[in-house]
Amino acid sequence: MIDLRSDTVTRPTPAMRRAMAEAEVGDDVYDEDPTVQQLQERVADLFGFEAALFTPTGSMANVLAVAALVGPGEEVLCESRSHILRAELGAHGALLGITSRTWVEERGQLDLPTVKSMYAPDMGPFFVRTTAIAVENTHNFAGGTVLPLADLQELRGWADEVGVGVHVDGARIWNAHVATGTPLREYGAVADAMAVCLSKGLGAPIGSLVLGTTEAIEVARVRRKRMGGGMRQVGVLAAAGLHALDHHLDRLADDHEHARLLAEACGQDPALTETNIVVVEAPDAAAVVAAAREEGVLIGAVGPTRVRLLTHLDVNRDEVERAATVLSRLVG
Amino acid sequence: MIDLRSDTVTRPTPAMRRAMAEAEVGDDVYDEDPTVQQLQERVADLFGFEAALFTPTGSMANVLAVAALVGPGEEVLCESRSHILRAELGAHGALLGITSRTWVEERGQLDLPTVKSMYAPDMGPFFVRTTAIAVENTHNFAGGTVLPLADLQELRGWADEVGVGVHVDGARIWNAHVATGTPLREYGAVADAMAVCLSKGLGAPIGSLVLGTTEAIEVARVRRKRMGGGMRQVGVLAAAGLHALDHHLDRLADDHEHARLLAEACGQDPALTETNIVVVEAPDAAAVVAAAREEGVLIGAVGPTRVRLLTHLDVNRDEVERAATVLSRLVG
Amino acid sequence: MIDLRSDTVTRPTPAMRRAMAEAEVGDDVYDEDPTVQQLQERVADLFGFEAALFTPTGSMANVLAVAALVGPGEEVLCESRSHILRAELGAHGALLGITSRTWVEERGQLDLPTVKSMYAPDMGPFFVRTTAIAVENTHNFAGGTVLPLADLQELRGWADEVGVGVHVDGARIWNAHVATGTPLREYGAVADAMAVCLSKGLGAPIGSLVLGTTEAIEVARVRRKRMGGGMRQVGVLAAAGLHALDHHLDRLADDHEHARLLAEACGQDPALTETNIVVVEAPDAAAVVAAAREEGVLIGAVGPTRVRLLTHLDVNRDEVERAATVLSRLVG
Amino acid sequence: MIDLRSDTVTRPTPAMRRAMAEAEVGDDVYDEDPTVQQLQERVADLFGFEAALFTPTGSMANVLAVAALVGPGEEVLCESRSHILRAELGAHGALLGITSRTWVEERGQLDLPTVKSMYAPDMGPFFVRTTAIAVENTHNFAGGTVLPLADLQELRGWADEVGVGVHVDGARIWNAHVATGTPLREYGAVADAMAVCLSKGLGAPIGSLVLGTTEAIEVARVRRKRMGGGMRQVGVLAAAGLHALDHHLDRLADDHEHARLLAEACGQDPALTETNIVVVEAPDAAAVVAAAREEGVLIGAVGPTRVRLLTHLDVNRDEVERAATVLSRLVG
Repeated sequence: MIDLRSDTVTRPTPAMRRAMAEAEVGDDVYDEDPTVQQLQERVADLFGFEAALFTPTGSMANVLAVAALVGPGEEVLCESRSHILRAELGAHGALLGITSRTWVEERGQLDLPTVKSMYAPDMGPFFVRTTAIAVENTHNFAGGTVLPLADLQELRGWADEVGVGVHVDGARIWNAHVATGTPLREYGAVADAMAVCLSKGLGAPIGSLVLGTTEAIEVARVRRKRMGGGMRQVGVLAAAGLHALDHHLDRLADDHEHARLLAEACGQDPALTETNIVVVEAPDAAAVVAAAREEGVLIGAVGPTRVRLLTHLDVNRDEVERAATVLSRLVG
Repeated sequence: MIDLRSDTVTRPTPAMRRAMAEAEVGDDVYDEDPTVQQLQERVADLFGFEAALFTPTGSMANVLAVAALVGPGEEVLCESRSHILRAELGAHGALLGITSRTWVEERGQLDLPTVKSMYAPDMGPFFVRTTAIAVENTHNFAGGTVLPLADLQELRGWADEVGVGVHVDGARIWNAHVATGTPLREYGAVADAMAVCLSKGLGAPIGSLVLGTTEAIEVARVRRKRMGGGMRQVGVLAAAGLHALDHHLDRLADDHEHARLLAEACGQDPALTETNIVVVEAPDAAAVVAAAREEGVLIGAVGPTRVRLLTHLDVNRDEVERAATVLSRLVG
Repeated sequence: MIDLRSDTVTRPTPAMRRAMAEAEVGDDVYDEDPTVQQLQERVADLFGFEAALFTPTGSMANVLAVAALVGPGEEVLCESRSHILRAELGAHGALLGITSRTWVEERGQLDLPTVKSMYAPDMGPFFVRTTAIAVENTHNFAGGTVLPLADLQELRGWADEVGVGVHVDGARIWNAHVATGTPLREYGAVADAMAVCLSKGLGAPIGSLVLGTTEAIEVARVRRKRMGGGMRQVGVLAAAGLHALDHHLDRLADDHEHARLLAEACGQDPALTETNIVVVEAPDAAAVVAAAREEGVLIGAVGPTRVRLLTHLDVNRDEVERAATVLSRLVG
Repeated sequence: MIDLRSDTVTRPTPAMRRAMAEAEVGDDVYDEDPTVQQLQERVADLFGFEAALFTPTGSMANVLAVAALVGPGEEVLCESRSHILRAELGAHGALLGITSRTWVEERGQLDLPTVKSMYAPDMGPFFVRTTAIAVENTHNFAGGTVLPLADLQELRGWADEVGVGVHVDGARIWNAHVATGTPLREYGAVADAMAVCLSKGLGAPIGSLVLGTTEAIEVARVRRKRMGGGMRQVGVLAAAGLHALDHHLDRLADDHEHARLLAEACGQDPALTETNIVVVEAPDAAAVVAAAREEGVLIGAVGPTRVRLLTHLDVNRDEVERAATVLSRLVG
């Protein structure tokens, strides 16, 4: 089976497993795991943040990052199909009492004029106040689209002016970095809090990090414990993350090329595929998913008339070409 | 002082106070207050609902109505400046774990194509599902705008098709009814749950109602108790509501005429003022508010460059004309 | 029917209704209702607090008072059958994320040695910290028992030592005051936050107050709005409260005498009945409730083998004696 | 350093690391990780449950297990120093709106007469209802005490009678099993939901499981995702758990013997030490902790006059004897 359902399906490589098996570890609830500390410091430094905290999932990293900027009864603004609102089961509301409003942008981009018009400054305690704008880069449900750095910098400038926080859901910020050449620190510089993921394109089995100020990360550590995310000898997982940063970052360019190849096979303008996610219209998404499966290709439906494919570490050029042949026939 | 800050500032009339003083009452926690029962039955009947429940505020009525349709971790879609998201302190999220997404429509209208594109059907338990669309009629922060019945009926038709609930925040549905002549039952027919308010245009001192099915209202009664809204001899308040329905409904037409008069004085096209709320652009809202106050007219700022005036039972024609003279000078 | 189910069933007297009908009112969301301000200042002063806030129910007053002392993820300790845990639908947990532990004391008394042994000081962010002890005076489900002032003062002394807050649920503090002659200020002096109720023994139709520091009450005002308790022309209700304080406080002594009379008729040592609540063992509570109803006496079951009677403003001596005759036969 | 602070500090052995490195894995969010499935089935079977679910921490397993039995606004009863109330940051209240009441038992035992007196049956929707009793076996903060099976069976019988659920926090149920010889299935048979931990005595780096009915585990899977616990290639962790079950269960007897040896050295009756936890009174706990550290022994303070030691996989007989010599001098 060629599995294009998600870039989360990758299995750790033998070298990564070796790194995990040899990791020096300690009890991270006591903040004594040297490998997780090394990972946290390295990732914080990569993006120019003061501190970082390991979490079992990207969802937990996102909710902790948003909670670092937005209190109960305050609101975050984000694009309508953001992962934090669509695919995290309402955690911000259900667990932390954070409310949300959204703008709608077909390719998941920042629409700053609309954001400005929606923004609710502090108008006294009886009105909900906007305390953060969240952006997602790359934007998953919009098809792995990249948010241009210039747009993010404009957001940053305005956010500083009015005093609102910026959260970047950077689950796939690595893809944006490789696709555009934008340094990670430039992406970090536009954010007050950030979430990055090790278990998508980078190919680690488990793990994300939330990034913020030293003070925010101290608070996030307590909230992580309350949410049940305070694990013990995390070094076995952090080692996978360190290995991934060393060995799996540059290769994302291959995934992007593979994705464009698949997009083209599906009869789509490959320029629309900016990173490793391809979203394709199909009259009957469920039928296409089933037909592809019969030919050994796993893809996902993301709506009644939309299928989604993701390329990753565990599908090589040859497999991509075989999948392209199948998909070309089914939706090309 | 001529108080145009809100239609909530009205004081009960002598006749209304008399009705309150003579109300037959009982312990409504035991469901034994005949006057509140009479009010609940009357309002349910007015809108064609099975049941209604008295609440101390419109905010509580709204949150109970939304909770009747949307569970924790599910979402409601509404217009970006809806009262339920802007002015209820995030209760849906903070107290009930409900999340929200919004469309942006300058005059607070339903944008059904966008709603349809945003709508998230049940895609399994790992995605947030849209379980209600909320509309506000009239729309407070958009300036008392009316939602056309035809639009609401189109929403109803689509909602039935896809199986999503419709909540109508009808705090000022009375104004929409009087402004358009649309029967209350027609408005009720488009909603699965609804909130209506007695203490705005109708002039009662306290009280709102949530409307729904018998079963939903039973659940709402329990949630009302949890939220601290299970009051005792509520008949003293319900009597004011019954009196208001008898005596203060038709006169809303005067408020609407007064509002158009004020809009014109402010140099605005009076056609933009559909009911009793006037929103006016002003270069420095705070300065206008202060200057008006010095001349005996109270108005409110709803943004740095926007002021808002509301007409109501406690400002008569003469006062409106005096206010118009002042405002004409300040923002005309 | 002679209604002994609860002291909440009282109907406002003609004089109280007159006071309500004549009340000067304003919009209390804008903090402009003079009558509610007068009531808030008077009750704060009665107990020696800086500030007070009107709420629609005792449940809301309690949850706001506890929330003034205890944050999300912190805990309050209280007696096992406290009203805040038994009869407020878990609001502290469900709405505010406050957790609780309890001691068990048959007569609802403070058990300070146990409280001290349970008390959890700040042991770092990974342990739940006790931030308030809540006591209930008189204690409803323990049968209207009074907490001796000396015990409360000992609690106060220890609480100051260790730095923990004290909440007094004083829904029936008026009864404790009249039963013991303890000045209200002495009761107020042992509390950091307090809730008192106007619609039980005092006979107002609706209303409670939360008491605290000026700062705590400011925060409570915002939380009250979020919970849907920010009502408008509250003066109509506050006037009833002011009237009750003037006219219905001293007469609670009659209720207490009536209760002892009923206790004796039920074959119980009248010394066990300290205020206006009588709890009586009965082999089959439901049967007793039904039989009493047939003879024109309403009482309540508070367990399979326990019935509860409360005396109040709306049952006079004659009715109490008739009820005593009936109950003597049924459970004497 | 000889680390006796907690049995969570163990590092995976070389053999365990090998098992992790060789684990077959898949994406567990898609329920496709064969190793985690094997572990879940094995543990469910060990205790006689229908299903089990892997969680990143014992706290998450506990909160999911309790939530399987108790809804928002309902209550769980447990002993006053239970881990679920003391050391999980109020998650039940803060995240799920569950309230709690407690009994106090010095050795953490079930006090069934008190439980029965506290139990609140369904008395209508306006009262909080007890829907679960939670016990902890062994009881951590009471010093690793075992709950006798006979007591648990008596609880089970009564729970069936009244229709209330039983949760067993079995983070250290392995220790109870080894200490008493009670079969795991017997422990499982008294519980409706259960949490067991792999990263304490069993020595796995990360992981716990929640056990329940097939239906309850389906719901727990969704809640786990909402809490941010839905990890991907979990097999790398599950493999450690499987290895631990094969190799580290019987050896807990050594830990128990070591603990008794330490208890004796501390001048305590060794019979009080039932498993691997020793709690010792010391006039100045902080001073003892510091002094021990200087001599190469790490222990923890669990109160101003109490220290706690735990034995585990990573301290051998020789180290225990050295620690005993040190502690004998300091607190013997």
